[in-house]
Amino acid sequence: MTKLTDIGEFGLIARFSPRFLSNLPAGVVGIGDDCAVLPWKKDARLLVTTDMLVEGIHFLRDRIRPRDLGAKSLAVNLSDIAAMGGKPDSAFLSLAIPRGTGVEWLDRLFKGIGDLTASENIHLLGGDTTRSPGPVVINIAVLGRVHPARVKFRSGARPGDEVCVTGFLGDSGGGLRVLLENRRQGRDEAYLVRRHNRPRAHLAEGAWLAGKKGVTAMMDVSDGIDSDLRRIMERSGCGAAVELEELPLSGPLRRAAAVRGWNLYEVAATGGEDYCLVATVRPDCLPGIARGFERKFGRRLSRIGSITGERGKLRYRLNGNPAVLGRHGFDHFR
Amino acid sequence: MTKLTDIGEFGLIARFSPRFLSNLPAGVVGIGDDCAVLPWKKDARLLVTTDMLVEGIHFLRDRIRPRDLGAKSLAVNLSDIAAMGGKPDSAFLSLAIPRGTGVEWLDRLFKGIGDLTASENIHLLGGDTTRSPGPVVINIAVLGRVHPARVKFRSGARPGDEVCVTGFLGDSGGGLRVLLENRRQGRDEAYLVRRHNRPRAHLAEGAWLAGKKGVTAMMDVSDGIDSDLRRIMERSGCGAAVELEELPLSGPLRRAAAVRGWNLYEVAATGGEDYCLVATVRPDCLPGIARGFERKFGRRLSRIGSITGERGKLRYRLNGNPAVLGRHGFDHFR
Repeated sequence: MTKLTDIGEFGLIARFSPRFLSNLPAGVVGIGDDCAVLPWKKDARLLVTTDMLVEGIHFLRDRIRPRDLGAKSLAVNLSDIAAMGGKPDSAFLSLAIPRGTGVEWLDRLFKGIGDLTASENIHLLGGDTTRSPGPVVINIAVLGRVHPARVKFRSGARPGDEVCVTGFLGDSGGGLRVLLENRRQGRDEAYLVRRHNRPRAHLAEGAWLAGKKGVTAMMDVSDGIDSDLRRIMERSGCGAAVELEELPLSGPLRRAAAVRGWNLYEVAATGGEDYCLVATVRPDCLPGIARGFERKFGRRLSRIGSITGERGKLRYRLNGNPAVLGRHGFDHFR
Repeated sequence: MTKLTDIGEFGLIARFSPRFLSNLPAGVVGIGDDCAVLPWKKDARLLVTTDMLVEGIHFLRDRIRPRDLGAKSLAVNLSDIAAMGGKPDSAFLSLAIPRGTGVEWLDRLFKGIGDLTASENIHLLGGDTTRSPGPVVINIAVLGRVHPARVKFRSGARPGDEVCVTGFLGDSGGGLRVLLENRRQGRDEAYLVRRHNRPRAHLAEGAWLAGKKGVTAMMDVSDGIDSDLRRIMERSGCGAAVELEELPLSGPLRRAAAVRGWNLYEVAATGGEDYCLVATVRPDCLPGIARGFERKFGRRLSRIGSITGERGKLRYRLNGNPAVLGRHGFDHFR
């Protein structure tokens, strides 16, 4: 018997998706990007995305406040809408809850969802609630919209394009390490945990970048750029080179990594759940876009590398020397 | 601490939904019906529904073939689209899978989903796959469409309307009892189990009934008419009276109930998961609609009772005498 663990999540998707990618109607984009894209109106496409959070896999109930968990469950979906350059409109919540769950805990979960729907002007329009024999399971589906001329896909990157990210990398991964190490937390650690438990979807950044013709591909950083860049490479039929010293790292992450002996680049490239955006930009357009981004958002659009023609190859360099991501993070290549 | 078990699923929905029902945009129908309804085009509204199936709660993995489970997970959503009179277009699947699950099992699950998407011309356009620490969890969201003049809600029933159902009641509940009793199965039991494990959404029936002005409200029979009729009563601000001897019961259910000592009316009214439709019909329109239904579908549209002005009261009668649904099913009222 072939086990799921033998083929992994991406193997599973590769195994079943061909069946569902044939004969799609005109204008429909199915499995394979941050959102599905459907025809809607003349000036808008419909975006749909869904994410499932499972207790024990995506969160530990005693390490996240229910209000943060509610907000995060929605934010991870908004991040997918942001990655397409879209605006979220409505959300649908399915919830499996173990017997004996306190209603107050659920009240706070809904408060977290409601805070974010209110601040982003999204409407929770439906869902399903059921009992769970074990873990809390939260599935949210989000519908959004994007102008047809602005939608960005993973497939548009071309060799020579610059790879940029819209925020710090590794903070969320650092926060997760703090939670799992379960040691005393200082201010830096508290910042990292907060970035892990209460991520912000880069909706404004995504919508702004989507308006730029020079942005060729976009996706959100959910698994870490080491994994996410490979998704762009697959869809775009190209490779990439990342310069580790260019990864934007927050002060708290640098300090916590130094104190706790973490491999900083490993956390930054593989930690995941940063929910900022990674975008590829035509090199001639980058200076103007970077200037505009900084003016608009008051922080840098960080260039971390470039797209190459080496199909399927993701290369890392550190201060000009090749580096490899080994079992224990990045080592210099010998 | 208030436990979820103290307030139940409907209590939970009543607790959190007001927050999400205020300030809805024009033309949007949110929580409270089989589907959410959103503006789309001049000649179509967008329908959205989602359902979560959890191992150990909704199914036992050793009592349902994965192919049936896949098809059922989608069918329960299609049933919600049917209840609004709509046509399903696309589906989004989230799947939590325990480590060690056989890939062949998943292949069959996807085969079941794919069979139904193909036969109903629906497209699976996205989703999420993740590991589960315990149960298999399947969440499907479905998008569909309905003509604005045809969409049916739970809220349109009026005193005097007749209550009708589009198929047998209790077969699925009988099938579940067979599965749980775990005794030797004959042909009748196999039929009931098949009706439980492989329900059919009444899409054609729903679309046909939606075209009739005399149909005032519609929903699907998912929890059993005892529960589902109460949802119509709540939304329509009315009561209902059901004549138990009019409930349409299949031969296999009658025979299995006789052999196994089941309370036939209890199974029929509370078994749930029949996934036929319950519709309320203006009495003057019923003869024409019933004739048309029989001509179109080759079987009866069964009248089982009527809507009353006794807000919140669901009354049962058996052969003209009042009956009550007690702890052990229906008893004559004394």
